[in-house]
Amino acid sequence: MAEVAIGIDVGGTGTKGGLVRPTGEILERIELPTELQAATKSILAVAEALVEKAGASQHTVMAAGIGAAGFIDHSSGSVTFSPNLVYDDRQIATAVGLRLGLPVTVDNDANAAAWGETMFGAARGASHVAVLTIGTGIGSGFVIEGRLLRGKTGAGAELGHMVIDPAGPPCPCGLRGCLEQFASGSAITRMAREVAAQDADTLMVELAGGADRIEGRHVAEAAARHDDAATKVLRRAGRSLAVGISNLVNLFDPEAVVLGGGVVQAGEPLLGVARDELVRMTTEQRRRPVRVTLAALGNDAGIVGAASLALDELTTKETR
Amino acid sequence: MAEVAIGIDVGGTGTKGGLVRPTGEILERIELPTELQAATKSILAVAEALVEKAGASQHTVMAAGIGAAGFIDHSSGSVTFSPNLVYDDRQIATAVGLRLGLPVTVDNDANAAAWGETMFGAARGASHVAVLTIGTGIGSGFVIEGRLLRGKTGAGAELGHMVIDPAGPPCPCGLRGCLEQFASGSAITRMAREVAAQDADTLMVELAGGADRIEGRHVAEAAARHDDAATKVLRRAGRSLAVGISNLVNLFDPEAVVLGGGVVQAGEPLLGVARDELVRMTTEQRRRPVRVTLAALGNDAGIVGAASLALDELTTKETR
Repeated sequence: MAEVAIGIDVGGTGTKGGLVRPTGEILERIELPTELQAATKSILAVAEALVEKAGASQHTVMAAGIGAAGFIDHSSGSVTFSPNLVYDDRQIATAVGLRLGLPVTVDNDANAAAWGETMFGAARGASHVAVLTIGTGIGSGFVIEGRLLRGKTGAGAELGHMVIDPAGPPCPCGLRGCLEQFASGSAITRMAREVAAQDADTLMVELAGGADRIEGRHVAEAAARHDDAATKVLRRAGRSLAVGISNLVNLFDPEAVVLGGGVVQAGEPLLGVARDELVRMTTEQRRRPVRVTLAALGNDAGIVGAASLALDELTTKETR
Repeated sequence: MAEVAIGIDVGGTGTKGGLVRPTGEILERIELPTELQAATKSILAVAEALVEKAGASQHTVMAAGIGAAGFIDHSSGSVTFSPNLVYDDRQIATAVGLRLGLPVTVDNDANAAAWGETMFGAARGASHVAVLTIGTGIGSGFVIEGRLLRGKTGAGAELGHMVIDPAGPPCPCGLRGCLEQFASGSAITRMAREVAAQDADTLMVELAGGADRIEGRHVAEAAARHDDAATKVLRRAGRSLAVGISNLVNLFDPEAVVLGGGVVQAGEPLLGVARDELVRMTTEQRRRPVRVTLAALGNDAGIVGAASLALDELTTKETR
């Protein structure tokens, strides 16, 4: 009976889970759609299915780790604020623990992914790591001296809502000029549509079938085919991303910055610009260059990270 | 023979030191001018004078802690980068340790001050604290889960060089639009001179005897006397300060933010605006309000913090 942990990653569309070895290897997987009005129910369903799979494959489940969207109070394993999902039971750790009879660790989903990349992914072996997940929004997780930055109430590590231009566009969070408004997938789409409304000749319009139908993938494809307008949009996003990274370097002084999420697939027209601009900034400041790498675990980072956090917690508690 | 620690704070003008009780009380003090081309020499002189004082007053010195301007590698106790001072011996811990025969801890000066305020000052009892020292520049120190944020190479916690407007004024650090260019003493002076060059009627010109002679104290005094131009300058600085605090709140989620340094003496025309704007921002974001307080230890924070760090290190090592 080999030992495994359950790792669960709760996102806006799906709740994914896996049975994870202490080495980070995922043995079994399951994914269910997240019930947007009852996310805890989705977590319980995935957790129970995984326990069943573990029984069938003769594995012993030691603990369950959950990475959940929202502000999470890690010590109680509960949700304190969640803008996009409704958790029918906010006391996630208690709910899952009672149902499965297992020790349960709950953390923010970006934290779990950051932990996964630090333990088993792109930043393996590093003790000071920043992980940015650039999708529709920008999520982030920070590892400092080998520990996750959680903040007092679980409301930290929100790099996406760092203001980099107080006169910038409004953000759904209520502020103006957040990094997310300049370098996320939704920002790239917004900027591309604005540009295309002025310049109907851009390939983006042709690819999308209209300026107001442009999505991130059209921007990436047009830029890959050297379309000027698309290139400019990604350059602008890349420069803003560099500002965000420079700011976190000035604050956290990490060994490695890991970039993940769908938007990094835009590749060099975005990332090359960000890297060059960051090198320029660190050189100006006479700082040591910081290693910037792409995430290695893809969509598995959250599952692997959550399981690893649960196992770590177990060890810490046992040795106390 | 009561036990004490030496605490030393190395600044651009003076090197201050004290014999500090484990309770944070300073028993004896000494201050010498810092030799700008030989700062380690100044540290050694202050340390030796304090050892002598300890002998005379029958106290046992257990350890020495040093808060030094620059990037500090805490693990080796050495200076890795120092823009404003020349350390004749960069291996500070080794130099002082050999001379005094004591365990020596070296940290960045802003870190030492942040630790002092957290242990014995305005943020006593809090485990997640941000301390901003707003003087000519903006220094910062962060305590996370009761530990100082040091970063991988000691080059972190530089809130002053967080870019909040990439199109903003150039900063001596090499970047543009750093927080320091909007909310520090030098920024206030710069903005006041710019405003006064356009508006010779401002009281600031009268107080200073010319637009280009305006200093921070003239701005503060004019604002206290309801001068419009001075009020506007401080309002602008206060709003930028709020952006800086909001950004650190989004990243670190602290319990308390402590503001110190000469500039806070401008009082309500600066701090009231910063507080109101921060409340507006946290309310927009539906965040819990964060406690913002003034530093309590004044210029002693660095000495007390450095001594406390040295004593803590002693305890940690003994129990290993």
